[in-house]
Amino acid sequence: MPPRFDTISFLSDYGTSDEFVGVVHSVIRSLAPHVTVVDITHDVRPYDIKGGSLTLARSVQYLCPGVVLAVVDPGVGTNRRAVAIEVGDGESYLVGPDNGLLAPAVGMVGGATAAVELTAPEYQLPAPGATFAGRDIFAPAAAHLCAGVPLDALGPRVDPAELVPGLVPLTREEDGALMTEVLWVDRYGNCQLNVDPDEIEAWGDRVQLRWTRPTEGVRTARRAAAYDDLGPGQVGLVVDSYGLVSVTVTRGSAAETLGLVAGDELALVPLAGDEEAADGNGRAGVTSPVNLQPRRTP
Amino acid sequence: MPPRFDTISFLSDYGTSDEFVGVVHSVIRSLAPHVTVVDITHDVRPYDIKGGSLTLARSVQYLCPGVVLAVVDPGVGTNRRAVAIEVGDGESYLVGPDNGLLAPAVGMVGGATAAVELTAPEYQLPAPGATFAGRDIFAPAAAHLCAGVPLDALGPRVDPAELVPGLVPLTREEDGALMTEVLWVDRYGNCQLNVDPDEIEAWGDRVQLRWTRPTEGVRTARRAAAYDDLGPGQVGLVVDSYGLVSVTVTRGSAAETLGLVAGDELALVPLAGDEEAADGNGRAGVTSPVNLQPRRTP
Amino acid sequence: MPPRFDTISFLSDYGTSDEFVGVVHSVIRSLAPHVTVVDITHDVRPYDIKGGSLTLARSVQYLCPGVVLAVVDPGVGTNRRAVAIEVGDGESYLVGPDNGLLAPAVGMVGGATAAVELTAPEYQLPAPGATFAGRDIFAPAAAHLCAGVPLDALGPRVDPAELVPGLVPLTREEDGALMTEVLWVDRYGNCQLNVDPDEIEAWGDRVQLRWTRPTEGVRTARRAAAYDDLGPGQVGLVVDSYGLVSVTVTRGSAAETLGLVAGDELALVPLAGDEEAADGNGRAGVTSPVNLQPRRTP
Repeated sequence: MPPRFDTISFLSDYGTSDEFVGVVHSVIRSLAPHVTVVDITHDVRPYDIKGGSLTLARSVQYLCPGVVLAVVDPGVGTNRRAVAIEVGDGESYLVGPDNGLLAPAVGMVGGATAAVELTAPEYQLPAPGATFAGRDIFAPAAAHLCAGVPLDALGPRVDPAELVPGLVPLTREEDGALMTEVLWVDRYGNCQLNVDPDEIEAWGDRVQLRWTRPTEGVRTARRAAAYDDLGPGQVGLVVDSYGLVSVTVTRGSAAETLGLVAGDELALVPLAGDEEAADGNGRAGVTSPVNLQPRRTP
Repeated sequence: MPPRFDTISFLSDYGTSDEFVGVVHSVIRSLAPHVTVVDITHDVRPYDIKGGSLTLARSVQYLCPGVVLAVVDPGVGTNRRAVAIEVGDGESYLVGPDNGLLAPAVGMVGGATAAVELTAPEYQLPAPGATFAGRDIFAPAAAHLCAGVPLDALGPRVDPAELVPGLVPLTREEDGALMTEVLWVDRYGNCQLNVDPDEIEAWGDRVQLRWTRPTEGVRTARRAAAYDDLGPGQVGLVVDSYGLVSVTVTRGSAAETLGLVAGDELALVPLAGDEEAADGNGRAGVTSPVNLQPRRTP
Repeated sequence: MPPRFDTISFLSDYGTSDEFVGVVHSVIRSLAPHVTVVDITHDVRPYDIKGGSLTLARSVQYLCPGVVLAVVDPGVGTNRRAVAIEVGDGESYLVGPDNGLLAPAVGMVGGATAAVELTAPEYQLPAPGATFAGRDIFAPAAAHLCAGVPLDALGPRVDPAELVPGLVPLTREEDGALMTEVLWVDRYGNCQLNVDPDEIEAWGDRVQLRWTRPTEGVRTARRAAAYDDLGPGQVGLVVDSYGLVSVTVTRGSAAETLGLVAGDELALVPLAGDEEAADGNGRAGVTSPVNLQPRRTP
C-alpha cells in the first residue's frame, strides 16, 4: 500500500499544558512514520467550536495537501459522529467530529465530495475510556489515510448534505448602520469583522464605530493600509491579511481599547463632515476618547 | 556507526516563552540530523517533578521507540545525578535528572534493564555556566544514543535499584470512605483521581464527594460514560482515557467548581438511596449545590 | 536547482493561540518540502523588538546552519524594509524586518557579508492586505533561500552598514556601584544582567543589590555556582548558561521577589564585612528581607 500523503495539519482545543498534543503526534508517527505533522494551533478556547471553525477556515487555503485533523469536541464519547470528509475528489481529507467544526473550511475549498463515519474498530486504538477520541479515533484515521488506507475502509458513507453545517454570520443594514460581528480577536488585539472591504468602499476615510456591550460606546476610526500608518493609540480600520476589515489600535489592543470580544456586535456608520463633528470628538478624529454616555436607545 | 533510533520524545518544565525548547531541538538536530523530536509538553509547572513524572507516565505507552528526554530539574548543577536509563534491554532509553521524574514511566514499561550516569565530557557541550543541563548534557546524550553511541560510552554504570524512585499515591479506606488524591487537573478542569474503576465497581450510580481543602464541601456525582452524558453544570465520575476515574463537570471545570488542585485529597463515599436524600440535595442529585457548611469535624 | 539548506529556525511574537505560526510552517512546507522548521519561540512579547533580538542573540550560536526567520514587526506594511542578511559568506541567512531585531544575532556570528531588500514579487505570496508579512514575504524568502534561490534574486542589495543596528546596553560605574540592566526574565524568574562575570570577579562572595523601581529596595545576594546551591528563598548571583550573571532565588522567582522586569536598572555594590553589617541584614546575609525604606534620594 503506497503512502498517499505526507502532511497532517492539526488544530485542536487541547492546549499545550497537558500531553494530549504530544500523544497524538506519537500515535500518528507510530502508524505513519513518513508523515510530518504541522500544528496550526491548539489554543482554541476549550469547547469553542465556532472559534475553531473560523481559525481553520482562515488557514485552510495555505495548508499543504493531505489530511486536516481538527478536534474541538465537547460531545466526545456521545452519539455525535466522528467523520472523515473528502474534498477535491480525494485531493485532501478533513478528519474530526461532525459538529460544525470542519464545515466552513470544507466550504472554502469547494465542498465535500464524499464522507464516511469513523466506525471501523481495526483503524482505531482500543482505550479504557471514551474521552480522548483525538488519540483513539481521529489521529489513527488521519494516519491511515496518509498511509494509503481507502476512505471507505474507515466506515460507512455519510451523505455530505447531512453533515452538521457551520454558521458564518452575515452583516445587515439597520438605520443606516452596517451591523457587523467580531469574528476573531488575534494576539495583538486586532478585531476581525465579518466585513468585506467592498461593503464600505464608497464610505469616506473616517467611520464611526458604535457598540452596546458591555457598555455603550462610540468612536471614530480612520481607514489605513497598515497597522503602523496611524499614530499611537489611534483606532483604525485595516484590510487584514485575509481580506476582511479589522479594527486596530496602533501598537495597542483594539479589543482592550473598545472592550470587544469575539462574537460581539459592532455597528459601522459612514461619516460625513458634519456628523464627524457632531460626535463631539470628530475633529480630533482618530484620537477621540470613548464616549461612555448612551447616545441612543438600543 | 549506524543510527539506532529516529525519535526523541521530549518533556520539560521549560515553558515556551523562552528559547530553551528551540535550543534543545537545535542541539539535537546538529548532533543527529536524522532524528524527529516529538514534544510531549513543556508546560509542566516549574520544578514540579511529581506532576512531570505523572505526565510522562500517562504518555509513555503511546510514545515511539527511541529516546525519551525529560527535564524537570530544580537541582541542575548540583550533585544530583544526570542519567540515561535503558528499558526493554535496549528497546528504548530515558534521559534526564535522577530525581524521580523518570521513575513512574520506567516502571510502566517494565523497569530499568541498565543505567549510566552521564559524565563523559566528550558527549556533552562545554558551557560557561551549569544551569542549562538540557542543552549541555541531556540533549547531547539523547542525540548520541539515537546516533548509535553505546550506553556505556556516556558514563559509568549505575545500579537501577539505586535510582531515585517515584512516588505514586495509593488510595486508602477511612470510615467507609475511599480516600483518594487528585493526580492531575487537565486543561478542561477534569480531575483525574488515583482510583481504578474496579475500586468503586460495586457502588451505585451516585457517589458522594467530600473534601476539606480549601474549605469543606460535599457534592453528589453521577457516574457516566462520557463528559457530555450529563447535563450542563452536573458533576460526574467518568472513566477517562487512561482508565482512571476522573471528576468532571459537563462543559465546565470540575477543578473550579469544586476548588480542587493537583495533590488535593478527595473522599468518595458510596450512596444508598437514604443517604442520598440525607445530604439535602440527593434527590436533585447531580445538580446539587456545593454545601459550604462543615459536615463533620476533620 | 539543488537545495541549499534543510533547516529554518523560526522566532516571532505571533504567539500560539492564533494560526499564524501554523500557516507560516505550511507556506514553508509548500515551497520547500525538504525543510525542517525549528521553532525557537513565538512568545516574544508583542512588538518587543529588543526582547526578541536578545532571545535570538542568545540562541544563534546553537542554531543549525540554514536560514533564521525572525518576525517581530510592528511596522509591517509600512516603509520599513524587509531584508535577507547573509552571514559567513553564505554559511547562513537571516530573514526578517530591518528594525534591529536581527542585528545582535548577526553581530554574534561575525557580521553581515551581504544583504538584500525583499522586493521581488515572484518570490512573495499575493495577499489582500499587507498585515501578515511573515506569511507573504518572509516565509517565502526563507523557503526559497533553502531551495537554492540566490540571494540576489530576492531583491536589490542593501549596504550592511545601513541596516538598523541593535542596541545592547552597557554597564557603567556610578558612585562605586556597577549600574546594570535586566536583559531578560526567564520562565523561572531568573533575571539575566548585562554583566560579564569578569566585571565582578574581584568582588567578595556577597554583593549588594540596589534598585529604585518600582520602589527602592536593597538586598544582599550570595554568589553561587548553581541555582540549588543556595537555601530556599535565598537570593543568589549565578553565572548562567550564556556566561552572564543572573539574579536567582532558589526554587522561587527572583523577578517576583525583587519586583524586577526586563529593562529595569539594578545597581551591584561590592560588600566588605563592615558594609555588609551596615545594611541591617548583612549578618543574616542571604535571607535578608527586602528593605522598603528609601535609603537614598534618587
